[in-house]
Amino acid sequence: MTQETLELTELVAARDYDAVGDWLAEHGALDIADELIRLEPSDRAVVFRLLAKNRALAVFEALDPIHQQQLLDALADDSVHELFLHLDADDRARLLDEMPAKVAKRLLANLPDYARTNTNLLLGYPEESAGRSMSPRYVSVRAAQTAADALSKVRRAGLRTREVHVLPVTDDQRKLVGVVDLPDLVTAEVGTPVGELIRPETYSVRVDDDQEMAARLMQEADLVALPVVDTEDRLVGVLTVDDAMEILEAEETEDIHRAGGVEPLDVPYMDAGVFHHARKRALWLLVLIIAAASTITVMEAFEESLEAVYILAFFIPLLVDTGGNSGSQASTVVIRAMAVGEVRFSDLPRILHRELRVGLLLGLMLGGIGFPIVSLLYGADFGMVVAFTLLAICTWASFAGGMLPLVARRVGVDPAVVSAPVITTLVDATGLIIYFTIAGLVLGL
Amino acid sequence: MTQETLELTELVAARDYDAVGDWLAEHGALDIADELIRLEPSDRAVVFRLLAKNRALAVFEALDPIHQQQLLDALADDSVHELFLHLDADDRARLLDEMPAKVAKRLLANLPDYARTNTNLLLGYPEESAGRSMSPRYVSVRAAQTAADALSKVRRAGLRTREVHVLPVTDDQRKLVGVVDLPDLVTAEVGTPVGELIRPETYSVRVDDDQEMAARLMQEADLVALPVVDTEDRLVGVLTVDDAMEILEAEETEDIHRAGGVEPLDVPYMDAGVFHHARKRALWLLVLIIAAASTITVMEAFEESLEAVYILAFFIPLLVDTGGNSGSQASTVVIRAMAVGEVRFSDLPRILHRELRVGLLLGLMLGGIGFPIVSLLYGADFGMVVAFTLLAICTWASFAGGMLPLVARRVGVDPAVVSAPVITTLVDATGLIIYFTIAGLVLGL
Repeated sequence: MTQETLELTELVAARDYDAVGDWLAEHGALDIADELIRLEPSDRAVVFRLLAKNRALAVFEALDPIHQQQLLDALADDSVHELFLHLDADDRARLLDEMPAKVAKRLLANLPDYARTNTNLLLGYPEESAGRSMSPRYVSVRAAQTAADALSKVRRAGLRTREVHVLPVTDDQRKLVGVVDLPDLVTAEVGTPVGELIRPETYSVRVDDDQEMAARLMQEADLVALPVVDTEDRLVGVLTVDDAMEILEAEETEDIHRAGGVEPLDVPYMDAGVFHHARKRALWLLVLIIAAASTITVMEAFEESLEAVYILAFFIPLLVDTGGNSGSQASTVVIRAMAVGEVRFSDLPRILHRELRVGLLLGLMLGGIGFPIVSLLYGADFGMVVAFTLLAICTWASFAGGMLPLVARRVGVDPAVVSAPVITTLVDATGLIIYFTIAGLVLGL
Repeated sequence: MTQETLELTELVAARDYDAVGDWLAEHGALDIADELIRLEPSDRAVVFRLLAKNRALAVFEALDPIHQQQLLDALADDSVHELFLHLDADDRARLLDEMPAKVAKRLLANLPDYARTNTNLLLGYPEESAGRSMSPRYVSVRAAQTAADALSKVRRAGLRTREVHVLPVTDDQRKLVGVVDLPDLVTAEVGTPVGELIRPETYSVRVDDDQEMAARLMQEADLVALPVVDTEDRLVGVLTVDDAMEILEAEETEDIHRAGGVEPLDVPYMDAGVFHHARKRALWLLVLIIAAASTITVMEAFEESLEAVYILAFFIPLLVDTGGNSGSQASTVVIRAMAVGEVRFSDLPRILHRELRVGLLLGLMLGGIGFPIVSLLYGADFGMVVAFTLLAICTWASFAGGMLPLVARRVGVDPAVVSAPVITTLVDATGLIIYFTIAGLVLGL
């Protein structure tokens, strides 16, 4: 954390392994993981081996699955199996997803039976489902047990702490009836039946429910753990809050990438090669340039006006930019409001009514400022054309920006897709029609 | 949750309060809160009063501070004090932030001493600091205590469960020495000293540290609770994971709004009036249109080319759009990589090297596709102009989009500010210079 010490990269470059050892001793697992990924892949394994065994696991867990895989590739086989065995089943499943099938198969084959069974169970659920991200290890208790009996069951189980902050309560058929918080078990009288300590509101999700939905439920209901059940309401696992936070971060990244016109990257920025980056952007650039080709058609349609008054071309970039910005603003706030559950399709009429008035207000402001300036420089005719166009474009772009995300979701498209770049391109052609029409009327072309 | 039942809004509109009561009994606190905010403010209080006392608090806690305030306004004074008293101190501080100073003062004055002291303490820390969001209620234990003694202290304290999943461990001077997980206390032998159960890695933040930094630390280190200390390392509170998730959601919303060229809204979309929305967008629209005015200057500089070959104007919207899209893509992925801690300023040379090559690759693709099409329709001269311009603009825009967010943070500006709309506007003027220069060279203007 301190700025005075040399960076790990420099110590490694100097091959000063004593100093590297000191550096590792002074830093936490998160910092070490952060610096480790800045080293060349071959150096990472060298440094990683200098870590004490129990710290090595903490550092390994702090890495992304893609960096974990790179590290495993570089380590010798025996330490690989060691590390792999000590991961949580859900982390192991996520790591296996990233690996070539052959390597994954060999690693799985070397696991003890109980760990292999748990991991295979998770790998059987669809990607991005709650089942894939849950932990299959939990301690469940019965409603009829006393608090003391439940606590001694927790003691016997010997699970990792994050798995026993909250305990699912089941009936004789393993069906979920509620959850009890460990603190409530601890503070209750020893003879209290667990049934009396069950939380008033019970939340649970199905194994095949979407993991983002599950994570958002945990966030909204302030849950530390969420039971996952099968189609017959039988308990099969628990989703913990640390996994929920990771799921939400990954989903936010996807939304933000889509909003910027990029297909979500599968790997961290620095690990994606040039071709990977280009591939993730090429499709949208192509779609958008094909859509933008419609602006050429519009310009051709108004060719005579343009030939007569070529000065009209001067204002085109400014006008299409402003339309695009106005539309992006509207779609940005509506998309975010949808993502956090504030608005839904039935709110469409109210949203459109609001966006129309917001756009009108902004258009009046820009037009009011633009009119005197453009009039002064190019004459009152041009001033009127630009001012009226700004008014009309802002209103139309806000309206379109507010409408499209909701319509997109209605027809089953991710609303994040219809944001800034898409809206910009869509309102450009229509904005030009507005511009040349107003110019034709005012200038009598 | 079921689609068959009538919506709450319809039952309330029909004034069928028996049916409303049934509806409330069948739905969870989160669903009720979700539907409540869709009612008229005056109807919300009526429905809220139909809730049983213990459920009313759960529903109230599920509301945003702004909706909580609206509800308090509509409720009679006695139920207001009741609700207010039962909130957590940190939730109370957040709610008071939203209230008119006069109302806040009166509510505070009616609190019992202990609750008022806690709340005033939090209100004394700067906004968006860890101190403002932490809970001042916690159970701390001593390293020298036995596990059994520590557990009986937990039992005596009688705090809410989320406050005792993790217990800070302090020395005689109240200085933080580590944390112990409640599950570890429960599963340990009764005589084990707490000191032996302390987690290997201890994380903590200062009261005046930024709350987003604290929340991200909790996410990265998988923490359920994070101790907050003063400048002398003395324990003053605990930040819990449910608050960390709310902080991250609010910060993501801010980033996403800024990325779309909107100042963050202070209230949910539907609760912001037309003027509030317009105000949050007006500044950026103005800044961007002033920046876009530079495109007029560029067009004037190339007035002669444009007068001679007005067809050049046809391609302007398409070319500036593509430059803007390319730049937005680069800035989007770099800004997100910065937000999640994947890249930092020292990575600038590698990022620029990468973005240059990605932009070149995309430019080659678009130019390669554009050349034959434009050549066919407008002749090989125009084909060359458009193809070379696409190549140059994509390369330049990716470079600028990769560089600006990092430079922005370096000079102390939120990188989210230099995203889609800003990059688009910045690369437009430069893109036009590139276009007209290439046109001049190829067409001999």
